[in-house]
Amino acid sequence: MNIVIIGSGNVATHLSLALQKAGETIVQVYGRNKATAAHLAALLKVTYTTHFQKIHDHADLYIYAVSDSALSDLLQYPLATNALHVHTAGSVSLEVFKNKKIKYGVLYPLQTFSAHRKVNFKQIPLCVEANDAESELILATLAARLSEKVCVLDSDQRMKMHLAAVFSCNFVNYCYSIAEQLVKENDLSFDVLLPLITETAAKLDQLSPHQAQTGPARRNDSMVMEKHQQLLQHHPSWQQLYAELSRLIVEKYLHKP
Amino acid sequence: MNIVIIGSGNVATHLSLALQKAGETIVQVYGRNKATAAHLAALLKVTYTTHFQKIHDHADLYIYAVSDSALSDLLQYPLATNALHVHTAGSVSLEVFKNKKIKYGVLYPLQTFSAHRKVNFKQIPLCVEANDAESELILATLAARLSEKVCVLDSDQRMKMHLAAVFSCNFVNYCYSIAEQLVKENDLSFDVLLPLITETAAKLDQLSPHQAQTGPARRNDSMVMEKHQQLLQHHPSWQQLYAELSRLIVEKYLHKP
Repeated sequence: MNIVIIGSGNVATHLSLALQKAGETIVQVYGRNKATAAHLAALLKVTYTTHFQKIHDHADLYIYAVSDSALSDLLQYPLATNALHVHTAGSVSLEVFKNKKIKYGVLYPLQTFSAHRKVNFKQIPLCVEANDAESELILATLAARLSEKVCVLDSDQRMKMHLAAVFSCNFVNYCYSIAEQLVKENDLSFDVLLPLITETAAKLDQLSPHQAQTGPARRNDSMVMEKHQQLLQHHPSWQQLYAELSRLIVEKYLHKP
Repeated sequence: MNIVIIGSGNVATHLSLALQKAGETIVQVYGRNKATAAHLAALLKVTYTTHFQKIHDHADLYIYAVSDSALSDLLQYPLATNALHVHTAGSVSLEVFKNKKIKYGVLYPLQTFSAHRKVNFKQIPLCVEANDAESELILATLAARLSEKVCVLDSDQRMKMHLAAVFSCNFVNYCYSIAEQLVKENDLSFDVLLPLITETAAKLDQLSPHQAQTGPARRNDSMVMEKHQQLLQHHPSWQQLYAELSRLIVEKYLHKP
């Protein structure tokens, strides 16, 4: 399949590199930002354009790895009608492509991508969806060449999975970043926390999060919780967050330990 | 050293097993709860008692791995005066032992311990503190036999480290448990989230949490954030938590991307 990659951010980069590694042919990169588009095109050794109207019109597959609002903007333009068009967003409905007289689908990689951080694509769950059985088969087959973990989810299920991903990744990372700021403020080393962070995630191989919960709130240890909230007096938002998360944990275990 | 273990919970169990493995001599277990005390004593092949007044008075080291309130209760009793007494709590001051005419200290393992989950003690940071240089040396030497990561922290630093640990472990795990409940409610599999959870923690080997942040709030993508909050309408506490965490992330990156 000849593929045009639309977007040049983290998802576009990791996905297009994985596609090329799997033997697929990327024919072109489109990116609004010239520097990042040129950079990705160079990585892939293909051409790029910063004008959406100048993308190849004879590719088999167009992959939109752009922000949700950029996607809406791009879909105002006429699209290659004989090709399959797919987006990569967790919380955008398949129906965003409706009424375009095209084949369409979704290829959503359930992972957190950062620049300068390699990921093993084979282990990334890929959620696929398409407007007809033929396109679904094409996408699922492509996904299975990239990853060992392919699942077919409809738009509603995908959005719920994305929401769960926000809690298990984005909010988790924000908790890490509060910890980082707290130790830095006190001239302590964040590295000391890394074994704990690793183990907290690794436990889930064996225990459910419900079973794995530990800490002052789990034990309903109000003395410790009060001390911690006093320590947070100069960070009222974190103090409130501490109080609320602790309250929810205490409540969760109060009646069903 | 002859050691008496006071407590029979997760910390007492993992720590005493590590001590025995390192060649130390556990002489007795005390536990309020007969079943768990007997179980730990059997694991260690030593005797146990459920009466604090009946613990050996000739040991070299007494390790209190009990809840903070149980510790206060036990310290009402007379303690063996020639021995070293240490607790294992993150947020209890060293001074809890003051005025007892004993040598005393703290041996705080910065890790999350669950029953039925083995941990590699060598990788667990052990924070030590003592009331005099001699006791500190004894504790640091003992700690270094258990772990490759020993640090000397005073009570104030230890409590701040414990607070950071609550954010990076206990609150993180609670976020996992919200995700678990969300996917279960929608007949989706929690296992699909595990590669994401693992990668979110593993990224920190290479990136700071500040650099590693991704997601709708990081992009200030209000359309997605609104959709997610609508999905949480039947979980008002989580909906509010979503809004607050997102607000804090948006704010964090608004002026320093």
